[in-house]
Amino acid sequence: MKTMKIVVVGGSAAGAKAAAKARRLDQSAQITIIQKDPDLSMASCGYPYYVGGTFDNRNALLATPTGVVRDPGFFQKTKDIKALVQTECVAVNREARQVECRDLQSGEKFFVEYDKLILCMGGKPKRIPVPGTELEGVTHLLSMADTDYLHRAASSKEVQHAVVIGGGLIGVEACEALVSRGIKVTLVEMESQILTMLDWQMAKLVENHMKSKGVDVRVGTRLETLTGEGGRLSSVTLGDGTVIPCELAVLATGVEPITEPAAGAGLAIGELGGIAVNEYMQTSDEHIYAAGDCVECVNMITGNKVLAPMGDLANLQGRVAGENVAMGNSVTFSGTTQTAICKVFDFGAGVTGLTEKQAKKASVAAYETVVNASPDKPGFMGAGLLISKMVVNSDNDKILGCQCVGSGDVSRQLATMAMAVRAGMTVTDLATADLPYAPPYSLAIDHSIATAHIMGNKLKGRFKSISAEEVWQRIQDGNPPFFLDGRGPDEYEVLRLGIGEKYIPLGMLRNKLDELPRDKGAEIVCFCKISLRGYETALILEANGWTNVKVMEGGIMAWPFAREA
Amino acid sequence: MKTMKIVVVGGSAAGAKAAAKARRLDQSAQITIIQKDPDLSMASCGYPYYVGGTFDNRNALLATPTGVVRDPGFFQKTKDIKALVQTECVAVNREARQVECRDLQSGEKFFVEYDKLILCMGGKPKRIPVPGTELEGVTHLLSMADTDYLHRAASSKEVQHAVVIGGGLIGVEACEALVSRGIKVTLVEMESQILTMLDWQMAKLVENHMKSKGVDVRVGTRLETLTGEGGRLSSVTLGDGTVIPCELAVLATGVEPITEPAAGAGLAIGELGGIAVNEYMQTSDEHIYAAGDCVECVNMITGNKVLAPMGDLANLQGRVAGENVAMGNSVTFSGTTQTAICKVFDFGAGVTGLTEKQAKKASVAAYETVVNASPDKPGFMGAGLLISKMVVNSDNDKILGCQCVGSGDVSRQLATMAMAVRAGMTVTDLATADLPYAPPYSLAIDHSIATAHIMGNKLKGRFKSISAEEVWQRIQDGNPPFFLDGRGPDEYEVLRLGIGEKYIPLGMLRNKLDELPRDKGAEIVCFCKISLRGYETALILEANGWTNVKVMEGGIMAWPFAREA
Repeated sequence: MKTMKIVVVGGSAAGAKAAAKARRLDQSAQITIIQKDPDLSMASCGYPYYVGGTFDNRNALLATPTGVVRDPGFFQKTKDIKALVQTECVAVNREARQVECRDLQSGEKFFVEYDKLILCMGGKPKRIPVPGTELEGVTHLLSMADTDYLHRAASSKEVQHAVVIGGGLIGVEACEALVSRGIKVTLVEMESQILTMLDWQMAKLVENHMKSKGVDVRVGTRLETLTGEGGRLSSVTLGDGTVIPCELAVLATGVEPITEPAAGAGLAIGELGGIAVNEYMQTSDEHIYAAGDCVECVNMITGNKVLAPMGDLANLQGRVAGENVAMGNSVTFSGTTQTAICKVFDFGAGVTGLTEKQAKKASVAAYETVVNASPDKPGFMGAGLLISKMVVNSDNDKILGCQCVGSGDVSRQLATMAMAVRAGMTVTDLATADLPYAPPYSLAIDHSIATAHIMGNKLKGRFKSISAEEVWQRIQDGNPPFFLDGRGPDEYEVLRLGIGEKYIPLGMLRNKLDELPRDKGAEIVCFCKISLRGYETALILEANGWTNVKVMEGGIMAWPFAREA
Repeated sequence: MKTMKIVVVGGSAAGAKAAAKARRLDQSAQITIIQKDPDLSMASCGYPYYVGGTFDNRNALLATPTGVVRDPGFFQKTKDIKALVQTECVAVNREARQVECRDLQSGEKFFVEYDKLILCMGGKPKRIPVPGTELEGVTHLLSMADTDYLHRAASSKEVQHAVVIGGGLIGVEACEALVSRGIKVTLVEMESQILTMLDWQMAKLVENHMKSKGVDVRVGTRLETLTGEGGRLSSVTLGDGTVIPCELAVLATGVEPITEPAAGAGLAIGELGGIAVNEYMQTSDEHIYAAGDCVECVNMITGNKVLAPMGDLANLQGRVAGENVAMGNSVTFSGTTQTAICKVFDFGAGVTGLTEKQAKKASVAAYETVVNASPDKPGFMGAGLLISKMVVNSDNDKILGCQCVGSGDVSRQLATMAMAVRAGMTVTDLATADLPYAPPYSLAIDHSIATAHIMGNKLKGRFKSISAEEVWQRIQDGNPPFFLDGRGPDEYEVLRLGIGEKYIPLGMLRNKLDELPRDKGAEIVCFCKISLRGYETALILEANGWTNVKVMEGGIMAWPFAREA
């Protein structure tokens, strides 16, 4: 049998995985990785934690779990894979089946032949059209070089104030990293919210948490100019004219796929600018595969193509490409549900499946949403808070997506919901799910199940609710409903919304109905800390003849606006 | 409309939930809870943590998240539910639709009429036929009274040595609670393993962890006698003649359903001794429902009836019963996948779906298992260990169950797998699942997905493996294979199996093939710390002509036997 020649362009997540998988399946193949950077197999999602000082050993980002750095020698010895670093693939000659490479140190050009080629070039920072990006003190956080730069800057004492441009995953993680180094941080986001993967309310709760940790978050503001003195960054100017003196700016305005040398070789590029692949991770050339941040993949819920530059997907896609290259097309990557999570100080925040705005955009015919706030486990075990927003297809009861933020175990919640979304489970399926319960881990009725219960009640017309955003809008419009807070006096002494609400503890409500509006058609909005008592309050009012009663979803804990503390 | 009379017998998890749900759906019903104990809505799964001193406020076990004790006054005021505590339901007159009750303080008998009755009597300790159970110092850990007793005993300085009888969930949790009070603990289990919900190897790993925390675990040993002096426990005698002096014994030998007054009223009782109910939680009498530890329910995978006395299921079943009583049969409890989790010192341990022994017992025609050990997240984030055992139906690729133990995030793993099992997902489905990934929470390829990958490789015949138990048996039989440890010298200096293994680091293997058996048919078992390098080692040997090469599943981390540290 002829020895197969496999060339992989890119040696980070997708590329290294594809090469390793191909090797496991074909011990005789000649496998070559062409890697532009000096490093291989970088744990790039770990960069912010190195910058922030969670660990100090740079090699941990490049090493196996037992501490061996994955350098070319490692790839050669343990995997019999030739890894050419600081080498750029400048062109692909599809007819000759060879790639043209350039040694970035010597400048020398050479050619490598392939039978199968896997393109894993990853992503690059989206360039933003502002002056000053070349200044010393301005960086991205995408490469090992960026990371080294930021690590040095953050651990020196020279940076007092940093500005992070872009409130996506990397921007938010960069904020935490810099704050934990004692640096004053301003986060600038041009959209009206950070973490645009979330709906506004959920993102606002995260923003509030960041502010409580000292981050100066400015949304709806554009970066205008980076200004320097003697070639060094000295300040940034925002679209509203604000000038923020700073020594460091992190540009985290997103990534876009690197499509060279694919585009130059005439491979199909998708509408979103990523390399087009089928479910086998095969490009428009049957001998060429692609995986990772440089490709487009399918959103499993909408069926639409998306860019999903995530480290886990890069690994999974790389594995599929590696297997198909070695064995012929036999395994598939069926798509993404666009699951994401990030740590934001003491909060976790993430999403799986569709948000409300995505459901709207994807023209889902009929959908319903609900917000649920609850502890993640019993109070006596030291509970954290979870706030979830679930989106379902109200035509067929299917769970389309869920967002979750808070100080509780967000990771388990999102894993649970990611599986529900992937499996096409309905609200009814989830309502009696058998999840692992013990007090150290969850409530007897897990938060995810409780969310399904509330959604079920809403779909059945029992839980008539109003969102915090609608409530706020009504207040702004000068047309507030009658607000009824069902908590006890000790609770509202500590924390209250201060929106003109009436206080009647649930336990006294049946004897105090005369304190409510006489007009049984008056709009009454009930709530409590998390709105379970708010729900019971509303049911009592309805049973007593009030006809326009609503529960404010998620109660005080999910209220994203100012409140009286 | 006539006011409906709803009577609920039992006011703990299922009963309180059923009553509350019925109230939310029917504001005019007359709802009565008949509760034998003095307390209501006890968080019984939290008992061990109160005993162990995780928290000191007894009321936390009885209170709402905001700290209000759920006593009869609470039920009356907030839910308009009449809760009669210290009241026993002694009989049900189905024709007259009334229950006969006895006030346990006054002895007075009275009758309560019902239109719908919900039976939630819970479970009671299985009695064990040994002398001495009446001694002072001998207790269960099932009721608030037991808990108060144990809390007093454990926080007094009078108990030096305690014996826990039974290594199930409660027994194991009791051990941790008592150890954290500074008490020397012996755990006695008559089966050959603790936590019989797990397969032997997984349970043994937990046992080893308990021993490392100072618990004297004795499996395969029966309790013979409880011996006292002056009415107080002074020692226990085991089946092997061992006498253990102790001041405290906790009997945790399991629970059985309380079926009175159901059985006396002629309601159908299942083969396992629980009240028989349909998917609506309705008994053989259409006006009577039952929920919680007193019923039998369906194992969704085997279709068999099981007893599943779990707090979460009690709540879910109670909710279903409450809704169906109020609204007519409209929602179902579709069954259990027998998910369970417990904290065991620094370990989590649990299961969802079928274990290997259950698959065998349930006569699953063809199944396959695999053990996977890996960190839960990157080492630089402070990883914990996860060891999973997955069981699949090898005819259709469906995941039947998964066990997980270790110091890592076992809770998320089991939640993920519980959803996979419930949804009937296949190994292939899980292999490209889109789970929440960020370094603080997981590896880029989540442990659950990696387990699916290994299982996939096994099903495809690529991963030829042998279990640690088989290896051990072969050593005991005096017929060991050739063992090859593929780790580096620094690693085996720290920890090794010491079973006569040869050490050749993976990176040197291709140059040291002459150190392996010349007989290419010789049986060679490869491993490493977790057996990823073991797998790569095996592939290299196969490519070089050895024909009988196996990987030891889970490597050194999943090895449950003695090792050289």
